[in-house]
Amino acid sequence: MPELSEFQADFLQYMKVNSFSKAPEGLYEPVDYIMQLGGKRLRPVLVLMAYQLFEETYDEALPVSMAVEVFHNFSLVHDDIMDAAPLRRGKPTVHHRYGLNTGILSGDVMLILCYEFLLKVEKRHLVADLVAVFNEMAVKVCEGQQYDMDFETRKDVTIPAYLTMIEYKTAALIECCLALGAILAEAGSENVDHLRAFGRNIGLAFQMQDDILDTFGDPEKFGKKVGGDILNNKKTFLVLKAMELASAEDRKALDTWMETTEVNEEEKITAVRALFRKWKVHELAAEKMDQYQKTAFEHLLQVQAPAAKKQLLFDLADQLLVREV
Amino acid sequence: MPELSEFQADFLQYMKVNSFSKAPEGLYEPVDYIMQLGGKRLRPVLVLMAYQLFEETYDEALPVSMAVEVFHNFSLVHDDIMDAAPLRRGKPTVHHRYGLNTGILSGDVMLILCYEFLLKVEKRHLVADLVAVFNEMAVKVCEGQQYDMDFETRKDVTIPAYLTMIEYKTAALIECCLALGAILAEAGSENVDHLRAFGRNIGLAFQMQDDILDTFGDPEKFGKKVGGDILNNKKTFLVLKAMELASAEDRKALDTWMETTEVNEEEKITAVRALFRKWKVHELAAEKMDQYQKTAFEHLLQVQAPAAKKQLLFDLADQLLVREV
Repeated sequence: MPELSEFQADFLQYMKVNSFSKAPEGLYEPVDYIMQLGGKRLRPVLVLMAYQLFEETYDEALPVSMAVEVFHNFSLVHDDIMDAAPLRRGKPTVHHRYGLNTGILSGDVMLILCYEFLLKVEKRHLVADLVAVFNEMAVKVCEGQQYDMDFETRKDVTIPAYLTMIEYKTAALIECCLALGAILAEAGSENVDHLRAFGRNIGLAFQMQDDILDTFGDPEKFGKKVGGDILNNKKTFLVLKAMELASAEDRKALDTWMETTEVNEEEKITAVRALFRKWKVHELAAEKMDQYQKTAFEHLLQVQAPAAKKQLLFDLADQLLVREV
Repeated sequence: MPELSEFQADFLQYMKVNSFSKAPEGLYEPVDYIMQLGGKRLRPVLVLMAYQLFEETYDEALPVSMAVEVFHNFSLVHDDIMDAAPLRRGKPTVHHRYGLNTGILSGDVMLILCYEFLLKVEKRHLVADLVAVFNEMAVKVCEGQQYDMDFETRKDVTIPAYLTMIEYKTAALIECCLALGAILAEAGSENVDHLRAFGRNIGLAFQMQDDILDTFGDPEKFGKKVGGDILNNKKTFLVLKAMELASAEDRKALDTWMETTEVNEEEKITAVRALFRKWKVHELAAEKMDQYQKTAFEHLLQVQAPAAKKQLLFDLADQLLVREV
């Protein structure tokens, strides 16, 4: 049984052989740049693992795993423009390094190249299904990004609306990885559906964890600045739940903090965090996260595949959901 | 035999039924806005006409015709951002009306929706071929746009490099329209190849005409400002050919004009136009355009389809290439 590191190494090898170093350089160099910024390559590994549940090897799934990694990086390039982010993994973002126009156009070609990789699969009769599932995800990711931007200025965001937003923006791609791997392995609709549900719920649990860590995480271990969501007045699960549960007085206090931008940063983070603790919303978020993980695992149990192979996915999910807090 | 106006009306009807008015509004309203700015819908009509060469009706080709129109409009949205263009067909561009982030994200979702329409064809076994041809075109359009941007600052642009650039940026989409229609009609590879060559050469002739009209066109009839290419120091066929043929003195004069930006606009246009006339480069461009059209028509003659149906494409090409000058 291959280990996680083998999946990662095989994917990186495929990526190396299929590098984007071609003309025009101004278009493709930024693609290589963002693709090589690193990361754990979990999305492509999920494609390979899902495929390998039903097959002996996973070479056939490598082009599909590349499609999801290119898509993920496309979305980073364009999101970084929309968020005006200067840095990504400690390096300049594409538009900061190469300019806005290059950021837009290199992102566009990456989105197109995703389909190029889907077309590379040997099982030509599956291309239409793969493109359909991929497309459904890609539309959701755009819609999720739009809802996320809309929520910044909306005062009436509900928790269900928030959960739909993170399902679209984050969980849909994880779900798609598992769906693509299983469809390519012709695993049958029941297995595909259970793997999709596994992926979707892991994605939701992961985003819930990210919300918690952004506010309560260990600054040493958390990649981004702890308290970033609070400073950006993001309407996370924590905020929305606090608004639902807190006393009128505390709701007003939270509201005031969320409308303040010219402020001592540490003071604001400390005050908002204290309000979250008082109304135990971080505990409710952790419970929600656990529920998602539980649901995910129930679906994975239902998948008709060797237990030892499924264990790889259980382990990977456990690793993703570290429960540091 | 349906007339051009019937093809246009049927396409507009399909577009109406498949409007983009859904949630989130912030994402899809700009898509409807740009799609409804108008235009002659020549690209979708070309898909329908190519299909109809080999079939009795063209309903089956409507989703594919929609894919190319959505792609064309996607490229306008993102190109307008890259060109910092405030207006498109006399109306505010998407990013001017809705903001940069919306311009990027609505463009992205349009690119994704193209594939959605390709997936709608009833002949499921053709989806992979359609996506492959569409993708080849989409990559070329991005590469062409990159070359176009690169050429602005390059001093070593050759005429072959320029012709490749316009082939990618403009002609590839026209070629693709004809290819998609013919492939969907299962017209056979010889017919597909001749129709592709017809479309590519018509696209090149059309761009050559656009270069001429931009400098020598009738301001009343030409949609854009006449002289725009000269003021923007664009390295068109006219400029490159003049640089090849002119005396050292005139080359230097042209060079000086092309490096000048702070200048009386009419004076610059008049002077550069005079240099073009002196070295007869507009006549050479018109000859080149005629050659492309001739080649295009030779290929269309070779297509195995009823002459009366092919006449529709001859007529449309003649209408496109008006030879106003």
